[in-house]
Amino acid sequence: MKGALIDENGNLSCRFVVPVIRGEKQEDAMARLIASAKEATQGVGPDDSIVAIGCGVPGGINTFTGVCDFASNLGWKDLPIAKILSDAFSLPCKIDNDANAAMLGEIKFGQNKQYKNAILLTLGTGIGGGIYVNDHLYVGNEGKGAEIGHMVIAANGHLCACGRHGCFETYASASALTRDTKEAIDAHPESLMAKEAGQGVKIDAALPFECAKKGDPVAQQVIDHYIEFLGVGCLNLIDIFRPEAIILSGGVSKQGENLRLPLVHYLEKMGYGFGVDKAPKVDIKISRLGADIGIYGAAALGFSLVK
Amino acid sequence: MKGALIDENGNLSCRFVVPVIRGEKQEDAMARLIASAKEATQGVGPDDSIVAIGCGVPGGINTFTGVCDFASNLGWKDLPIAKILSDAFSLPCKIDNDANAAMLGEIKFGQNKQYKNAILLTLGTGIGGGIYVNDHLYVGNEGKGAEIGHMVIAANGHLCACGRHGCFETYASASALTRDTKEAIDAHPESLMAKEAGQGVKIDAALPFECAKKGDPVAQQVIDHYIEFLGVGCLNLIDIFRPEAIILSGGVSKQGENLRLPLVHYLEKMGYGFGVDKAPKVDIKISRLGADIGIYGAAALGFSLVK
Repeated sequence: MKGALIDENGNLSCRFVVPVIRGEKQEDAMARLIASAKEATQGVGPDDSIVAIGCGVPGGINTFTGVCDFASNLGWKDLPIAKILSDAFSLPCKIDNDANAAMLGEIKFGQNKQYKNAILLTLGTGIGGGIYVNDHLYVGNEGKGAEIGHMVIAANGHLCACGRHGCFETYASASALTRDTKEAIDAHPESLMAKEAGQGVKIDAALPFECAKKGDPVAQQVIDHYIEFLGVGCLNLIDIFRPEAIILSGGVSKQGENLRLPLVHYLEKMGYGFGVDKAPKVDIKISRLGADIGIYGAAALGFSLVK
Repeated sequence: MKGALIDENGNLSCRFVVPVIRGEKQEDAMARLIASAKEATQGVGPDDSIVAIGCGVPGGINTFTGVCDFASNLGWKDLPIAKILSDAFSLPCKIDNDANAAMLGEIKFGQNKQYKNAILLTLGTGIGGGIYVNDHLYVGNEGKGAEIGHMVIAANGHLCACGRHGCFETYASASALTRDTKEAIDAHPESLMAKEAGQGVKIDAALPFECAKKGDPVAQQVIDHYIEFLGVGCLNLIDIFRPEAIILSGGVSKQGENLRLPLVHYLEKMGYGFGVDKAPKVDIKISRLGADIGIYGAAALGFSLVK
């Protein structure tokens, strides 16, 4: 868990990090979080007055009530985070799913202010989604929407943790790319990927990109397959939303232009969805907020309370 | 092409119908449409003063400019419909894709005013989609979004007219159901569906529903398969939008509860998407506007210009 003070211009200060302790009671985790935040912001002067708190949580949030219904990775359940933080600091507090928060952070702090309609994808363990439409974050009933990673793109395909088969994230997350890389290495022991893995290089979502750059055709096949399925999901979102931009963040987005250019090529080849010559193009961008996207997203939530 | 006068309460008068003439020049078609509308509304008194025109068009509309970029079924291209109608009647005119218009019609006239977030599906030749979010119609950049029928749910599946494979409408439109029915009849000449077809009953999307009611297991299989894929698409929309309602219209929706109940059963079995106990339920409804949904949709567009 991490946090900071952020001003309207995106200047970041008083940064703090709180380790997650497996098995800890959720109330104790919140108490440590509050203590760290208070310590980090000690001595903040009246010129830097704090106006609101924002908090992005990896889990199911009821944005109507400010309660975290569940956060599987943290082991949290029915936790009224907004009230706890608001009481602790005597400040208004807004919480949301971390991907929804990140979408808002991209608009406010990520040099994407020009967009009225945009989609954020976080390509990590799963695929998180953020939806910005008509100049507003869209979260759906009780904030339970924008679960883009669970859009089925291949009926009867890979089994997903959600119980359905063929979800977008089972094909285009960092975990999916790592799985496909491992399978390719097993099937092609002669490949450069297999050799590098044999020499102790970690098998992760970066490996096929690195080996494809060095000319490994097996790695290139893994990338091509990944881009195709990432492309299918992006085209779905383009057909549904026809946004002005899709912004890519999360682990796989570290590949930058090596990810973006082949994806754009795929989308152009497929006519940007619906095969319409006249349909407006969609900007495909890599997030500039990097590893701090979570903090910027939380800050954007906080600022949404201040007008 | 059809039209009418509609008041704020949905009362319909001065109904008119204009046949489509294949191969006719688009300007001539517009002239006939205008002449019929003028004739039908002749004698409308000052108490019934007309305030605006709305027009839903089956095709790609640029809602920013009011131009129909193309309408394949009508053979129209680059037709400035809003300007032509506005000039002819000296009234403001709003045009949109027919499914987007229908969505607005459902909210204004279809007893769905309570929803702030809803999705409309027209299950016809293809699948049209309308998206209503945060109390507003969402049409995407230039009005080219809400092409829900072209959301791929089965990568590498059935070829779609749009050029992609596995689009929602290749599995869950009336045409898809008719195709599956024909295939089942060919594969099962012993089935009740085959017998009825042999006696001259039309093979369409209604046939499997009729025969399933009479106990034909082959017809039931066709329906089950259809419901599953309609369900996959609906769950995607639920995961993405978490709307308060999904409203079904178009040819297949004539089956009413015989369509709605098994669909709801499928959605409940799958946990309404994302497998979350706490996620809010989604109302699944059959449109009450029936065959006049297009006229009500157009009227709702017109009223959107009047505040």
